[in-house]
Amino acid sequence: MSDLLWQKPGVKVDARIQEFLAGEDVLLDREFFLHDIQASRAHAEGLQRIGILDGDELEALLRELEALAGDFTEGRFVLDARYEDGHSAIEQRLVERLGDTGKKIHTGRSRNDQVLVATRLWLKDRLLRLQAVCVETAEVALARAGAEAMLPLPGYTHLQRAVVSSAGMWWAAWAEGFIDNAQRAVDTLAWVDANPLGSAAGYGVNLPLDREHTTRALGFGRMQVAATYAQLSRGKFELGAIDALGMALLDLRRLAWDLSLFTSGEYGFVTLPAEYTTGSSIMPNKRNPDVIELMRATYASLAAARAEIEQLLSLPSGYHRDLQFSKGALVHGFGRGMGALELLPDLLRNLDWNRERIDAALEPSMYATDLAVELAAKGMPFRDAYKQAADPAQWAEGDPVKSLEARSSTGSGGALGLDILRRRLDLLGIGE
Amino acid sequence: MSDLLWQKPGVKVDARIQEFLAGEDVLLDREFFLHDIQASRAHAEGLQRIGILDGDELEALLRELEALAGDFTEGRFVLDARYEDGHSAIEQRLVERLGDTGKKIHTGRSRNDQVLVATRLWLKDRLLRLQAVCVETAEVALARAGAEAMLPLPGYTHLQRAVVSSAGMWWAAWAEGFIDNAQRAVDTLAWVDANPLGSAAGYGVNLPLDREHTTRALGFGRMQVAATYAQLSRGKFELGAIDALGMALLDLRRLAWDLSLFTSGEYGFVTLPAEYTTGSSIMPNKRNPDVIELMRATYASLAAARAEIEQLLSLPSGYHRDLQFSKGALVHGFGRGMGALELLPDLLRNLDWNRERIDAALEPSMYATDLAVELAAKGMPFRDAYKQAADPAQWAEGDPVKSLEARSSTGSGGALGLDILRRRLDLLGIGE
Amino acid sequence: MSDLLWQKPGVKVDARIQEFLAGEDVLLDREFFLHDIQASRAHAEGLQRIGILDGDELEALLRELEALAGDFTEGRFVLDARYEDGHSAIEQRLVERLGDTGKKIHTGRSRNDQVLVATRLWLKDRLLRLQAVCVETAEVALARAGAEAMLPLPGYTHLQRAVVSSAGMWWAAWAEGFIDNAQRAVDTLAWVDANPLGSAAGYGVNLPLDREHTTRALGFGRMQVAATYAQLSRGKFELGAIDALGMALLDLRRLAWDLSLFTSGEYGFVTLPAEYTTGSSIMPNKRNPDVIELMRATYASLAAARAEIEQLLSLPSGYHRDLQFSKGALVHGFGRGMGALELLPDLLRNLDWNRERIDAALEPSMYATDLAVELAAKGMPFRDAYKQAADPAQWAEGDPVKSLEARSSTGSGGALGLDILRRRLDLLGIGE
Amino acid sequence: MSDLLWQKPGVKVDARIQEFLAGEDVLLDREFFLHDIQASRAHAEGLQRIGILDGDELEALLRELEALAGDFTEGRFVLDARYEDGHSAIEQRLVERLGDTGKKIHTGRSRNDQVLVATRLWLKDRLLRLQAVCVETAEVALARAGAEAMLPLPGYTHLQRAVVSSAGMWWAAWAEGFIDNAQRAVDTLAWVDANPLGSAAGYGVNLPLDREHTTRALGFGRMQVAATYAQLSRGKFELGAIDALGMALLDLRRLAWDLSLFTSGEYGFVTLPAEYTTGSSIMPNKRNPDVIELMRATYASLAAARAEIEQLLSLPSGYHRDLQFSKGALVHGFGRGMGALELLPDLLRNLDWNRERIDAALEPSMYATDLAVELAAKGMPFRDAYKQAADPAQWAEGDPVKSLEARSSTGSGGALGLDILRRRLDLLGIGE
Repeated sequence: MSDLLWQKPGVKVDARIQEFLAGEDVLLDREFFLHDIQASRAHAEGLQRIGILDGDELEALLRELEALAGDFTEGRFVLDARYEDGHSAIEQRLVERLGDTGKKIHTGRSRNDQVLVATRLWLKDRLLRLQAVCVETAEVALARAGAEAMLPLPGYTHLQRAVVSSAGMWWAAWAEGFIDNAQRAVDTLAWVDANPLGSAAGYGVNLPLDREHTTRALGFGRMQVAATYAQLSRGKFELGAIDALGMALLDLRRLAWDLSLFTSGEYGFVTLPAEYTTGSSIMPNKRNPDVIELMRATYASLAAARAEIEQLLSLPSGYHRDLQFSKGALVHGFGRGMGALELLPDLLRNLDWNRERIDAALEPSMYATDLAVELAAKGMPFRDAYKQAADPAQWAEGDPVKSLEARSSTGSGGALGLDILRRRLDLLGIGE
Repeated sequence: MSDLLWQKPGVKVDARIQEFLAGEDVLLDREFFLHDIQASRAHAEGLQRIGILDGDELEALLRELEALAGDFTEGRFVLDARYEDGHSAIEQRLVERLGDTGKKIHTGRSRNDQVLVATRLWLKDRLLRLQAVCVETAEVALARAGAEAMLPLPGYTHLQRAVVSSAGMWWAAWAEGFIDNAQRAVDTLAWVDANPLGSAAGYGVNLPLDREHTTRALGFGRMQVAATYAQLSRGKFELGAIDALGMALLDLRRLAWDLSLFTSGEYGFVTLPAEYTTGSSIMPNKRNPDVIELMRATYASLAAARAEIEQLLSLPSGYHRDLQFSKGALVHGFGRGMGALELLPDLLRNLDWNRERIDAALEPSMYATDLAVELAAKGMPFRDAYKQAADPAQWAEGDPVKSLEARSSTGSGGALGLDILRRRLDLLGIGE
Repeated sequence: MSDLLWQKPGVKVDARIQEFLAGEDVLLDREFFLHDIQASRAHAEGLQRIGILDGDELEALLRELEALAGDFTEGRFVLDARYEDGHSAIEQRLVERLGDTGKKIHTGRSRNDQVLVATRLWLKDRLLRLQAVCVETAEVALARAGAEAMLPLPGYTHLQRAVVSSAGMWWAAWAEGFIDNAQRAVDTLAWVDANPLGSAAGYGVNLPLDREHTTRALGFGRMQVAATYAQLSRGKFELGAIDALGMALLDLRRLAWDLSLFTSGEYGFVTLPAEYTTGSSIMPNKRNPDVIELMRATYASLAAARAEIEQLLSLPSGYHRDLQFSKGALVHGFGRGMGALELLPDLLRNLDWNRERIDAALEPSMYATDLAVELAAKGMPFRDAYKQAADPAQWAEGDPVKSLEARSSTGSGGALGLDILRRRLDLLGIGE
Repeated sequence: MSDLLWQKPGVKVDARIQEFLAGEDVLLDREFFLHDIQASRAHAEGLQRIGILDGDELEALLRELEALAGDFTEGRFVLDARYEDGHSAIEQRLVERLGDTGKKIHTGRSRNDQVLVATRLWLKDRLLRLQAVCVETAEVALARAGAEAMLPLPGYTHLQRAVVSSAGMWWAAWAEGFIDNAQRAVDTLAWVDANPLGSAAGYGVNLPLDREHTTRALGFGRMQVAATYAQLSRGKFELGAIDALGMALLDLRRLAWDLSLFTSGEYGFVTLPAEYTTGSSIMPNKRNPDVIELMRATYASLAAARAEIEQLLSLPSGYHRDLQFSKGALVHGFGRGMGALELLPDLLRNLDWNRERIDAALEPSMYATDLAVELAAKGMPFRDAYKQAADPAQWAEGDPVKSLEARSSTGSGGALGLDILRRRLDLLGIGE
């Protein structure tokens, strides 16, 4: 590792300890490095506005920061274990290139500031992408709900055949679910959209930093006012974002469960394109829906990220090194989660129903509830109608489409209410 | 247990199995019973609007539902293990009192409907209370931040003395934190504010239920459209509410940690009123801050509730009995969480600072950062200034108030920015 | 609430605060009360052995403790909110009945001692019951494995039909699993079998307490030596026990998943006795396997208990009131877990296979792996044999029993190795 | 990625999907690769014993497997994204080098076999290392307990000063704790010490594989008999190992909390060598105990690993791709956990007490309990003695060493019982 910014002469450094402290931290900083550079630009502008830097110094710093961003993007600058962390790497580069001017970049800020603001910008980016993929998923589901409104499908409770349902109802569930998930992303994005830069190590600094400028320059919706709260929000805001992603992944887990069953030999309702399946090393006959299974498993990775961060946060206020571990958890959870979600719209577009197998699963008992309700609609007290319809002698092969059409409450088979969902979705879409 | 609604004649019932199935479920239903009655009223009105009930039947049902609510509130009706659950208890009572009219109440709805809508109303109530207690907490913190803006307090990072801070900064952190927490409650309340009633067992029903009416009558912000999604939202919306509560409890845990340290013999910064402490059974000298410790512990109970629900939700779509366990988890988590939060505003109002102990903890090294920044402000590159200020020979007793006053960035000691927080809080307050 | 043991005159008590502190704690103490009395007996004996009590005092205390245990068991003594906790209730009763002699019972012990030792005894009891139910489950599974060794069953990976399996192999899995689970209970019981009594508030006491006596008298395998460690083991040992139970519940969750699928209309492999199923309030045709679903859900409750305790334990050493919440978590987790497990052996005894549906699910592709291995056994390199056997033209209806018989590696269809499992199980059984 | 073993001609492969499926899996396989090679050797030997391979083929395979292990260790063979996974890489290498002989290695085994057995060997290795580091930690603690038996230290409950304690008592807690932790590692190692190789894809194979040979050759304590259970134990045994590590990390978290307080300005009881601390980027005066903080944080990483695996395991029996994610969780949890533990013995050896600060914290009230017990020992009923000793007028400066010496119950100040711990530790030590 390179020289440590804060090291005093003569203090011995233990390699094993340094390795434990560093861990994979600097590699994780690659995720945040461009945001850190972006925030460094804003910070430099702010320093010039209060007279710490002159115009030439600012120009030099902005030029070198831009060059560093380019070098990083193009692979000419590699952020690795030679650096303590991404924050120090930026300062070190500026000092190498600009000498005393570089040594001024850290005036009035701490690495706490840097990690907070870079993570905040990253969270905003991820929440925006979450919103987009939820909207796209809802679009696919809504379109297929409309197109397949009257395609029958068995409806289950307790995994037992219950009543006739439809592909339309199945798709509508995911459409509304992912509208809600997009909404959660939107709310959460607004909630975390607060600029922590300018809080120094959590207690401010004896300079009149221009926090209004950095808030504007970085595109934040508001300033995170209290310097002490900026520290308290580390981990907390990460959890907020994880919770938002979690809502989408909870739905994905249940959707993947449906597809895992539907693609089994016993159900056989759905056929997946071959590229979503893999083979076995020993069983020549197998094609396995691994994509669906890893989608189902993804919630577990997010739960892990959540567990790691929330367990860390049993701490007094102020910064503690414990918080370092929140970074890897965040990257792991969002990496897995977004990776799975971003495959979802295409998967949904591509799945095919196998109508023969579906029809074979629609059995006479599944019309018993319709019968009971019909009797009730004609005046028989429902509890008596229920008893009458419970007699298997009453059950007969029915017409699933008629059964669906009779389901005339909003949100049910014959009245899916997709227009209502359409309106909510239009409000959430990210317009060109 | 009383007769089971759905039981067929001749099927034997095993007491141990029934006990396992029932668990504490019916006792938990006490939490939701009034909401279930309220929703039953709206459902009955809806049935009358579509001709399933006539005006007299409706009137009778409404009258008996009101009577049942009164009997329950006054303790004349006890919901206990004689009933399978609260849902069945309502129907059974109506049948007892009204005969055939009572047997009509369940037309077009399922117990799934009932538990969904009752839980939803309960969640809305709790989120409203959460918002209120967060607003109240923020009010106390904001008031004390203003009043104690210049009262010095050591600022820590890594639990090590870092720089001079202030009670004002400490209070401002909690003010902004609880404003955010109130905002999260508001957003979440809007997110879950959707009427699931009318989705039957998750696939609708062959009746034109008037879902617009029940949505309005129950005060929901929107209809939860897809019948299939109503089921998918069970557990998911509960987690959303738990997440909102969790944000407040995360802050409470850190606040309680601060107070746990501040009331220790080693810190001694804060004195708690005696009613917040307890004694020991063996050590006559002890007064322990148990209230603070249980506040700190409360997040763990919410984490438990979260774990229980999220582990349940690895399921295909549709209702499964597994979901029953979400109810106890929710009641446990919110019970503990709101119990702790509702003591917080008074605790914050009542705590006293011990200025002598605080002053003793402010040591010369805590001005070193000020010195480095001062040098930087005069033109020395910060990294050089840092090195110069690192020399203990440079450290001297300082004036903490001056140090605070020089902290002139918004959100720091001399410029707390409380007016910005005031404006956000005013938008969140629940008007008289 | 009654007088508080430790309260000083003139200190005001706030009812809301007291309620928050007490919570449901005293009700939970009902679980531990008899163990607390048992440990109080041993403590009294120890006090007499070191001269703090004389023979008459000891006799009186033992008599009253026995009476209290009887009164509690018979319902004549009700432990409720009139008492601060079960520990205080014992002392209070002894003082009421025996005056000064009663006031001596708490010499040299703290409530920390009491809760530690009572919980420890309770944990030992539960782990013994866990061992017993795991052994019983393994017995049922092993017997059915032997009886149904050649009953074919489809073998799945990824929920896709893979190769022919057997009921024998299915049962053998649970047999070996529950042998391991019983072993884990045994190991954990030995691990927690340490007497904490005599550690006072965690720092010992200025008396030569006869800890060897109480260790023997309470049937502990060893003394928990360090007084300071007794406190550290609170929560830690509870987690150890929860982990042991968790192993059984993880297997139960997977077993319940199998049965949930096997009892579905699509699989139809298994029929459950009617008493394990329930009906629907709206769908007259339904019989739902609710018992299986709640068994599946039970792991979630244990995960909740684990989360609650582990989140609490981010604390410095020594007792903290936070630990109070570990009690409810433990009771919740073990209550749910043991409740589910104790229904398992009978469920397994009672389930019936539906051979017709099973046979229908055995399809030609499931013999492809056999074919590939046969080719390899004849000398064709396996990877070439695999490719040849992957051609559907090669697949043909096979004889499932022959396929099983050819599976001659230990632990597979034709060589289940049940004798090896039998020997392990015999070592674990709890002798008559 | 290279050719997929199982791919059929003409099936298109989607790069995004392949990337999602592969994830970081092949990189994680580096952890397990040598174990996979070791197990491949044993498998080849077994194949020769049943006539699938002849002597020359076996010799060639063993030679190439050895060469591959050497190439991997020396960095000449890099396991990276060119391979689907480590398992395929081994087969591919053998086929490249040995042609048809290489194509025989996979006869009678699946990749499920390979990942199970390689992970199992890895778990055994890690549990052995866990045992060793727990024993070493206990040794350090026990030695310091003996050496510092009479060095006073304040004893706390609720973070409030309670009674006089000692460094001896503090060290004895960690000694006994880490003896228990080592015991848990030993028990768990025995519990997982079962050979899964030979279970193929979970249903065995139509060959008489010599599982006794592979069990012996790989040094397993027993065979994991049921092929179906081998699959069920995936994740379950990983959790068992994680639980064992968790016990040590729970203690580490509490130990780190103690040290975090003890090294604060307010306590000042402990001084850490400089190499365990770091500086600040902005505050020239800071030296922060980051090592201790990351040690404290490490439990969170293990909790994450646990959450990830347990959430995955809500599945029917048989292999599912979901389980792939257990691998990264395991590596993450053990990597962090062992990294922290392996620094612990040296840290404990190197910390110094600051007696001046300790003495200043011992205040008169801390002798009140001694006084109450003394009165009780002289015959005053303890509850009366307690009341008398509660009067601050009774409190006086005491002699801490005398107070410790009077603590004569085993495990307390004057009678630490270290010989008992010594005997348990000797039984656990790993002999030279």
